[in-house]
Amino acid sequence: MATTDQQLHTYERDAELRARAASVLPGGMYGHQSAARLPDGFPQFFARGEGSHIWDVDGNEYIDYMCSYGPIVLGHRHPSVERAVAAQAADGDCFNAPTERIVELAELMTGLIGHGDWAWFAKNGSDATRFALQVARAHTGKNTAIRGEHAYHGWGSTWMGAATGMTPSATDFQLTYTYNDLESVRAAAVEAGDDLAAVVVSAVEYDASGSWTAPDQAFVRGVRDLCDATGAVLVLDDVRAGFRLDLGGSWASYGVEPDISAYCKAIANGYPLSAVVAKRELEEAASRFFATGSYWFSGVAMAASIATITTLQETDGVAQIKRAGTMLREGLNLQAQSHGIAIKQAGPVQVPSVRFVGDDLAKMDIPRAMMFTGEAAKRGVYLHPTHNWFLSAAHRDEDIEHTLAVTDVAFARVKEAFGDA
Amino acid sequence: MATTDQQLHTYERDAELRARAASVLPGGMYGHQSAARLPDGFPQFFARGEGSHIWDVDGNEYIDYMCSYGPIVLGHRHPSVERAVAAQAADGDCFNAPTERIVELAELMTGLIGHGDWAWFAKNGSDATRFALQVARAHTGKNTAIRGEHAYHGWGSTWMGAATGMTPSATDFQLTYTYNDLESVRAAAVEAGDDLAAVVVSAVEYDASGSWTAPDQAFVRGVRDLCDATGAVLVLDDVRAGFRLDLGGSWASYGVEPDISAYCKAIANGYPLSAVVAKRELEEAASRFFATGSYWFSGVAMAASIATITTLQETDGVAQIKRAGTMLREGLNLQAQSHGIAIKQAGPVQVPSVRFVGDDLAKMDIPRAMMFTGEAAKRGVYLHPTHNWFLSAAHRDEDIEHTLAVTDVAFARVKEAFGDA
Repeated sequence: MATTDQQLHTYERDAELRARAASVLPGGMYGHQSAARLPDGFPQFFARGEGSHIWDVDGNEYIDYMCSYGPIVLGHRHPSVERAVAAQAADGDCFNAPTERIVELAELMTGLIGHGDWAWFAKNGSDATRFALQVARAHTGKNTAIRGEHAYHGWGSTWMGAATGMTPSATDFQLTYTYNDLESVRAAAVEAGDDLAAVVVSAVEYDASGSWTAPDQAFVRGVRDLCDATGAVLVLDDVRAGFRLDLGGSWASYGVEPDISAYCKAIANGYPLSAVVAKRELEEAASRFFATGSYWFSGVAMAASIATITTLQETDGVAQIKRAGTMLREGLNLQAQSHGIAIKQAGPVQVPSVRFVGDDLAKMDIPRAMMFTGEAAKRGVYLHPTHNWFLSAAHRDEDIEHTLAVTDVAFARVKEAFGDA
Repeated sequence: MATTDQQLHTYERDAELRARAASVLPGGMYGHQSAARLPDGFPQFFARGEGSHIWDVDGNEYIDYMCSYGPIVLGHRHPSVERAVAAQAADGDCFNAPTERIVELAELMTGLIGHGDWAWFAKNGSDATRFALQVARAHTGKNTAIRGEHAYHGWGSTWMGAATGMTPSATDFQLTYTYNDLESVRAAAVEAGDDLAAVVVSAVEYDASGSWTAPDQAFVRGVRDLCDATGAVLVLDDVRAGFRLDLGGSWASYGVEPDISAYCKAIANGYPLSAVVAKRELEEAASRFFATGSYWFSGVAMAASIATITTLQETDGVAQIKRAGTMLREGLNLQAQSHGIAIKQAGPVQVPSVRFVGDDLAKMDIPRAMMFTGEAAKRGVYLHPTHNWFLSAAHRDEDIEHTLAVTDVAFARVKEAFGDA
């Protein structure tokens, strides 16, 4: 990997593919993996991955701090996961009914997660968050859900009321609160009155304005108490942080269990799977309606999930991720200080957020982050200018050291361009 | 496989797993793959598949006429597909951006499907139908969609208004018509007035009452003309029939192109993928909103899809499927006649529907179908009592012959129990 300007990446093949994509994909690329809003230096197409490293279609190598926006928790092509996948795939994947893996995985997850008495599996994180809300409504016989103001719980009409192409009624029966502001939750609950079905919380604050903070104890305890008092179902969206913060659930360390949790991303090291786990008292409601998908019962992704979770357990993977994240955070802080650049780091170190104080993320006025991450990408370090990053158990000390050598150059560029941030 | 009562299947391992599943899965199993409403003889858990044959966890072998409810179009573990999957998986699957496969697959599909100028990919069939409707609404700036009365377009609040746990507003802005009844479509369009965004059609009629019929030419032509006259978007749900009836789209043989189509199931021979293809004029609308998922850009399922579609092209797979389906249909008709049992076969032979005239599917009073399919399952032929069946290109003449030997016994049992149907 390059650290000097003589060895900067080039992107010929990527440019050719972008040109072809422009003809056959809407807007050239869609969704969160579109590189259109990323700075130069970020490729649109990847070719391969191994551990903490990824290679784009031009053969440029990167240390990967997005981990496919979360799914890669053990590193790309982790041997234990690949072995389990190969064994299952040799027999088959998608049948007229599930394989034994669904029972094994449900037993594993319910054994691990305090509030998990039963489990349910699908393909998208948004399948899981939607199902959890449907269970809450079926269980309570009520409709109103209260949720974080700008929280992202997945694509689709269940969550995205104001989006283009949605009907005006898409998010009827939803009220909002401000994360970490218990009074705002209480006020929304009062407004819901006797129609309160669910309080929906993200494991860590994540909203469109870029705020990314772990919850405080009073907030976590308070929403639990409010649900206990009102009979509302406490729905934890653990899609983004699940299996990176705590194998028992991201709020377990607070001593608080939700009633139902939604999982995706890190659950199967990149194989397509999402899940819901919940308390026994919600099972009857979950059994009362039909929710299904063509590939929801397939064995390979479940075999991958069993191997992923077991490996995380056996190797204390969360501690490894935390160690790498801590080393990165401390290194960046020292570096920013020495360059005289004001940054703000937030969120758990396993899913960190790094902001330049001079930027305004809410207004998407982020020239420093764009320059910093673009300069890093060109030198083989894949960060992201706006989204939180993801660490994996595959990040070694030498990865972090090499990364810091690159970010030192990137900070210097920011300093040259913007002076005192 | 068994055809005599001395060799009937046993299901010990399946029973053990069902007992474990009862503790950790809602209702013991959920969704379309729950065996709870199937007769004895249907296992809840499968272990392996090869070509047109599948084996359950007790080692019982079946000729598979459900093909995983559609996805398996070339047969289980088809060598061309498995080779493409292995090659892609050796490099990796899920990255921070797509692989080249997304461009290749979009080029392949848009080259094959008349109205396909661009393509979009997700994981569930319902992702594709929901996205198509969102595109239609974004393009027209209108809200109302008209759809088949009891049509199934996937799980979730976009389509399932009256379902348990859904809010009263879930399917606001939807009106219904009766399939193959053009006047009812016109009446709904009049009711929609100047708010008509989309006419949503299934490739073949499929509704909850079990009706399953190919559309007639006047209906297909008529909905196209109505959309042309009103500016509504014609949305074809080709999830269930796509790539089994016609590689150019299931309405291509009618000389009619929809504006946008949703695909899933047969698109990747069991690997998790869904897709939308549409006309150029809808691209701008599709580029104007955010729709995404954690695994939507993964390379393995796209590699599987390229291999699946290419193999279907190169081997004239549709003709093979049709040949096997025709042989089965004709054999069953002769057999039913010779037993003096009245059956009604409907739908294209690739996705056939078989009903006993004495049963009432709308009321789920179906003792003949339950006995028939249960007796067949115990003897190694996996049919379904209520759902349409699916043939694949792996079904050989000897499969159909063996199947007919088994169904002969099953028809005899029905005759013994119910006399003249």
